[in-house]
Amino acid sequence: MGDMVTPLDRRVPHPLEQLSIGECNTARDVILSTHGVSVIDFRTINLEEPPKSLLQPFLDLEAEGRIPKPDAYPPRLARVAYDVISENKVFEFYESVVELVTGAVKVKELIDASHQAPLVMDPDDEDKRYFQGLCFAQDKRSGNPDSNFYAYPLPLIPVMDARTKEIVRIDRLGTGGKQDGLAKGTHNKEIIKHCKGAEYVPELLENGSRKDLKPLDVIQPDGPSFTVTDESLVEWQKWRFRVGFNPREGATIHDVRYEGRSIVYRMAISEMYFDSVNVAADGTATEQPNIVCLHEQDNGIGWKHTNWRTGRAVVTRHRELVVQFIITLANYEYIFAYKFDQAGGIVVETRATGIVSVVNIDEGKTSMYGNVVSPGAMAQNHQHIFAVRVDPAIDGPNNTIVLEESHPVPTSSDRNPAGNLYEVRQTPIKESGGHDAAPEHNRIVRIMNPNKTNPISGKPVSYKFKPPPTQKLLAQPGSIQARRATFTQHHVWVTKYKDNELYAGGRYTLQSRDEVDGVADAAKRAENVENTDVVLWSSEKSE
Amino acid sequence: MGDMVTPLDRRVPHPLEQLSIGECNTARDVILSTHGVSVIDFRTINLEEPPKSLLQPFLDLEAEGRIPKPDAYPPRLARVAYDVISENKVFEFYESVVELVTGAVKVKELIDASHQAPLVMDPDDEDKRYFQGLCFAQDKRSGNPDSNFYAYPLPLIPVMDARTKEIVRIDRLGTGGKQDGLAKGTHNKEIIKHCKGAEYVPELLENGSRKDLKPLDVIQPDGPSFTVTDESLVEWQKWRFRVGFNPREGATIHDVRYEGRSIVYRMAISEMYFDSVNVAADGTATEQPNIVCLHEQDNGIGWKHTNWRTGRAVVTRHRELVVQFIITLANYEYIFAYKFDQAGGIVVETRATGIVSVVNIDEGKTSMYGNVVSPGAMAQNHQHIFAVRVDPAIDGPNNTIVLEESHPVPTSSDRNPAGNLYEVRQTPIKESGGHDAAPEHNRIVRIMNPNKTNPISGKPVSYKFKPPPTQKLLAQPGSIQARRATFTQHHVWVTKYKDNELYAGGRYTLQSRDEVDGVADAAKRAENVENTDVVLWSSEKSE
Repeated sequence: MGDMVTPLDRRVPHPLEQLSIGECNTARDVILSTHGVSVIDFRTINLEEPPKSLLQPFLDLEAEGRIPKPDAYPPRLARVAYDVISENKVFEFYESVVELVTGAVKVKELIDASHQAPLVMDPDDEDKRYFQGLCFAQDKRSGNPDSNFYAYPLPLIPVMDARTKEIVRIDRLGTGGKQDGLAKGTHNKEIIKHCKGAEYVPELLENGSRKDLKPLDVIQPDGPSFTVTDESLVEWQKWRFRVGFNPREGATIHDVRYEGRSIVYRMAISEMYFDSVNVAADGTATEQPNIVCLHEQDNGIGWKHTNWRTGRAVVTRHRELVVQFIITLANYEYIFAYKFDQAGGIVVETRATGIVSVVNIDEGKTSMYGNVVSPGAMAQNHQHIFAVRVDPAIDGPNNTIVLEESHPVPTSSDRNPAGNLYEVRQTPIKESGGHDAAPEHNRIVRIMNPNKTNPISGKPVSYKFKPPPTQKLLAQPGSIQARRATFTQHHVWVTKYKDNELYAGGRYTLQSRDEVDGVADAAKRAENVENTDVVLWSSEKSE
Repeated sequence: MGDMVTPLDRRVPHPLEQLSIGECNTARDVILSTHGVSVIDFRTINLEEPPKSLLQPFLDLEAEGRIPKPDAYPPRLARVAYDVISENKVFEFYESVVELVTGAVKVKELIDASHQAPLVMDPDDEDKRYFQGLCFAQDKRSGNPDSNFYAYPLPLIPVMDARTKEIVRIDRLGTGGKQDGLAKGTHNKEIIKHCKGAEYVPELLENGSRKDLKPLDVIQPDGPSFTVTDESLVEWQKWRFRVGFNPREGATIHDVRYEGRSIVYRMAISEMYFDSVNVAADGTATEQPNIVCLHEQDNGIGWKHTNWRTGRAVVTRHRELVVQFIITLANYEYIFAYKFDQAGGIVVETRATGIVSVVNIDEGKTSMYGNVVSPGAMAQNHQHIFAVRVDPAIDGPNNTIVLEESHPVPTSSDRNPAGNLYEVRQTPIKESGGHDAAPEHNRIVRIMNPNKTNPISGKPVSYKFKPPPTQKLLAQPGSIQARRATFTQHHVWVTKYKDNELYAGGRYTLQSRDEVDGVADAAKRAENVENTDVVLWSSEKSE
């Protein structure tokens, strides 16, 4: 049995601090006692963030330097995801919310069949839960366990029933090229004989790593300029924010303030979405423990000016504070970074690295579905689309999202005699909905607090967001991919804040049939989003 | 008299090496002797790069490690720009090309009136050459000569005749806000009394610079990994290229090779273009000496993969070699960088910094033409549009530019039963012309050598260029801005190579009436650009 954790045992945890081991064990025990004798397979146990109505006043008190009293702390909650397995091997997937101090179960939700539990995949059968296995051969002759097996893709996909753990069938993949059309069985008997090694661990590289790069050392002799307290509070320069973590979103950023002024209530990677021609990613076994790292970095010149009269140059460097985490998903790694700079700017960066996803292709052939990247290994064309959710709080919770564009002005003798005038147009978004990037109009998305005026400009205070004009989902309307990723239909969504509405694709996305309770459903509520608690979502393709 | 420079005097300079002081003096003396007794005002004396027909074979010999013999060196040329001033103060602007060894004048060109000489401005009078002066007050009370005068813009523009050096008139600028419409003379008598200081030199900041940033030192204890020889040849990792410099383009990059394979013949910033609502920049007095700096930098994670079976992570850093130069143009500085990475990638970066361009505005007013950035100082909305010229040579001079896009494919039972297929379309550009970015189709511009096949992919070798989808010029068709910057009508231009065709806006852009012999004129030749010596131009807005 785990330890019951109460504020009396130890210091009261901050409402955004991750669950301790003791708290996790408490949640587990509560769930076990709730379901009696059933077998329970736990998936995740995580902090359930407090509702905004309780957390916002707490954070405001704290920002004013007034330490909230214990009775001002929101209840400490854990969200537990688990399977209940009956004797006849029927699985039921639950999500429950446990109040840790009292042991009360606040929510106990059986997730219905339209929501497959995370990490279950089966595009064909509506009522079964199947896994696909992607198979590779490994060249063991080197004896090195890190010899790169992705160089030897096998054109076989065994399909396993998640409940019975039995292989129900083995799908055979095509391996032909352009010249074969849709013909099957074009491969030789020795499927991978023409594949060649493509190693990446240094000791297996033919000539080792490059030797001609001299060291470049980044040193902070006096240590970093930031501090971390409470296991979650980061302070650096004029910034102050909290960092959380959960397995769905990775690092989450909370209560961002600059010189004491509120900017963001919460910000996170809301969704990542895979769509590939004929390969799906295997999740369970390949997710690695996630680690958030925090570091300062120099990003070149921040600002420079030379006074041409005196010749004197003044230059500042562009120092950034970076909250970074990396997720390994089978062959891929995704690098996510939140970068805070010294001028009040925030950049959210998404990068993909690792090894490209490959399938087998016959010797000497080329494909219209992708590129041969190593002999016998063809990397299929596919899209990765992510979403970032920003719950802004520019000088307070009530903000307005404004689309701002630059437009030409017709030549006229009174207003534009030389034809060189253009105008900047601002259109406030009044109702929840989806919008698109429009680089041809230099469209930017301004997050504005209409209740506060910048004393210099005389205009409302605001942050400017640049929506990346990346390509949207290419799958056909009506396809499973399009139905379960409605969030990819627009670059930008604006919705009214609602507790627990965190995921662009809905809570249960993986192999779901449809996007349910995602950002498109939120937008459909057609709520007022002007001068209120508004949420901004950005959907974009990763490179 | 300067020294005559011949290959006998010293080592033979590389054809891309900048002119020595001696060579500049030789060119000056040749021009002086050519024009007899006229007064000559020299503007610039620069290396005239050899024609490609002579330089390319030289560079190929050199790349093979065969040092060309003296007689294989192209003639050494200087381009001299100068005014010839007659006794009655008539200016004639010339550009001449001098062969340095023989002293022969190869070209002597009187630039006609449709081409104003660089740095002369006059939007009103067709036949005169006028300068505008932007006037500011300076707060001298601190005694600091670097007190920021841009905080005190004066609403007066004296206009000077460049030939007589006389002030021909003083233009009075409007200072009103939205509420004044086009009314003039809305200002108080004390125009700048409501302006406030906006200092940037550390000793004038009220609280000094920030004290809470700890040092971050970047150290290369064994020195840099690159070498520079011949004053122009840079070698780093698998890269080898030459760096030139001229006052029009800044640093120029030549003969880029990677592992001995040719990639780029020449690449440079071809054009930068200002268009502002009611302010033009003063050029002459404010151009600073330009310095090219070369450094290595770390740009985060280059590649990473964790083998989920063994837990072993392999990570490389993203080391870059950066060729950077900064131009100060009055209030602005432009930072240009060519970045070469360890995976064969090249990034051309353009950044603007310095101080925003401002005009006076009455106290407490706001404007539809820009933002008040400091009391009394309004930064006008305007565009900066640059062009980069890339003369590619992917594995040789004959290349083809291909537009590559991703498109949905209709659902059909035979080809796309699940609706998740999309196709990649390639369209080779056959004739010179302009093209646009199309992020909605994920359009990329592929520079391909159709004569060489990548042995792994089975496809032609190529480099991929991502055209930034920035907003085009907003000035009306027919305006001076639109007429003299035709290059801004498309994001990408493709032309057939022609010697000396280096500038997107034509050779004589500043205050010209029309773009002459720029990229649009080059495109109009409607030449074949498939599998030939082709040039790629990218026009884009800077932030």
